[in-house]
Amino acid sequence: MTQGEIRILPLHGIGEVQPGDDLAAILAAAIDRAGGLTPGDILVVTQKIVSKAEGRLIDPATVEPSPFAYQIARAGKKDARYQEVVLRESKRIVKMANGVLITETHHGFVCANSGVDESNVDGGRRLSLLPVDPDASAARLREALAARYHHAPAVIITDTFGRPWREGQVNVAIGVAGMAPLRDFAGIEDHYGYTMQATLIAVADEVAAAAELVMGKIDRVPAAILRGYQYEPVETGTARQLIRDPRFDLFR
Amino acid sequence: MTQGEIRILPLHGIGEVQPGDDLAAILAAAIDRAGGLTPGDILVVTQKIVSKAEGRLIDPATVEPSPFAYQIARAGKKDARYQEVVLRESKRIVKMANGVLITETHHGFVCANSGVDESNVDGGRRLSLLPVDPDASAARLREALAARYHHAPAVIITDTFGRPWREGQVNVAIGVAGMAPLRDFAGIEDHYGYTMQATLIAVADEVAAAAELVMGKIDRVPAAILRGYQYEPVETGTARQLIRDPRFDLFR
Repeated sequence: MTQGEIRILPLHGIGEVQPGDDLAAILAAAIDRAGGLTPGDILVVTQKIVSKAEGRLIDPATVEPSPFAYQIARAGKKDARYQEVVLRESKRIVKMANGVLITETHHGFVCANSGVDESNVDGGRRLSLLPVDPDASAARLREALAARYHHAPAVIITDTFGRPWREGQVNVAIGVAGMAPLRDFAGIEDHYGYTMQATLIAVADEVAAAAELVMGKIDRVPAAILRGYQYEPVETGTARQLIRDPRFDLFR
Repeated sequence: MTQGEIRILPLHGIGEVQPGDDLAAILAAAIDRAGGLTPGDILVVTQKIVSKAEGRLIDPATVEPSPFAYQIARAGKKDARYQEVVLRESKRIVKMANGVLITETHHGFVCANSGVDESNVDGGRRLSLLPVDPDASAARLREALAARYHHAPAVIITDTFGRPWREGQVNVAIGVAGMAPLRDFAGIEDHYGYTMQATLIAVADEVAAAAELVMGKIDRVPAAILRGYQYEPVETGTARQLIRDPRFDLFR
């Protein structure tokens, strides 16, 4: 074991999560199979199983598309019922072209199609929506696991988001509990005595990205433990701190 | 050791890198102190020590600012010589406000100030520039380490970049050798028999982000080994694949 080493442990055997399932109990069983929880661990959970357990699923057949949804559908490859669900999950359309929508969700996250997903839910027959309050979802898991293990892990709920300029998606944090999602180096002297001007690192997003490497998309590994990272334990940590204040965002 | 586990090992004791130093030899010494290189390892190196070894440093006193550099400097907090260096490192200014420049570098990366950095270089007396060709820098390190260890690590050169919409910077790949930077799940059936539509994961950026967690900004850990990730070994992998084609970027 090298000093300062970090380990990322996939949580195997979680299987199919259904609406109403006790996700904390399911995760705890998987954690126990991986050797248990160590103080200081970060539990990383993909949004998909959180949404399933919370029943954030919708049968598109039950949705009546609006005229605007039909219009978007005609320009792209997805159907009007799907587009209608995306519109209902959106606070704002940031950009749209060729039936692709970049939206701001009701939480304030900017992503494709407000995170509405067709894949991996009962063969595509239902759509999965982002959790209503991913921070609260993370806090509930943290509390339930603390009761079981007598120490509370930090918890991060994740989703894979695209980004401007760079190709490919990366896993990011959409819900956080028990840790500061940002690490601030501003005003800290580096080892030359030079005061660093503004370096704020989105460590919760980096933890989410790291965990994706063991989760994959088709490997049935929807959660992982990241062990050995010295995060800042903060009860008030929230993924909303990762949303850039529009006043300071050159890209709005 | 859990099946599928990933380990991130910080490379300690690298110390001060100077122009002309044999960076591969310095890294190899640090790798040996961490227990050596294992086949399949990814070596992650921060841009700063690559730039230093390659002499990509400039004394701002030697730079004559243009009228436009003076104009930018008046609007912001940085001096005209710094802004002049940023302009010379830029192919295009993407956005600018209040003396902050988001630029496209000559490589095609979009970031603040073209990656010109004041911190951690001899107390700020010199500015560090991004490597001229970070893929070539990565390939050279890979080749030198392959000669020493008789198996070649994948190599990723990184820098911390800000991004629109989300607060904080994350570590990303600016140079890649020996691995595919993107993992394509398009057309792969998930475990419901549902064909995933378009999921391209920027795994090189996720590896960069993961490694940042052990490197920190002031810990003198400018490199790390990521072990256990089953990357796709591709000799033609390049960080330029991580630059989104402008024709398909909704944000240009």
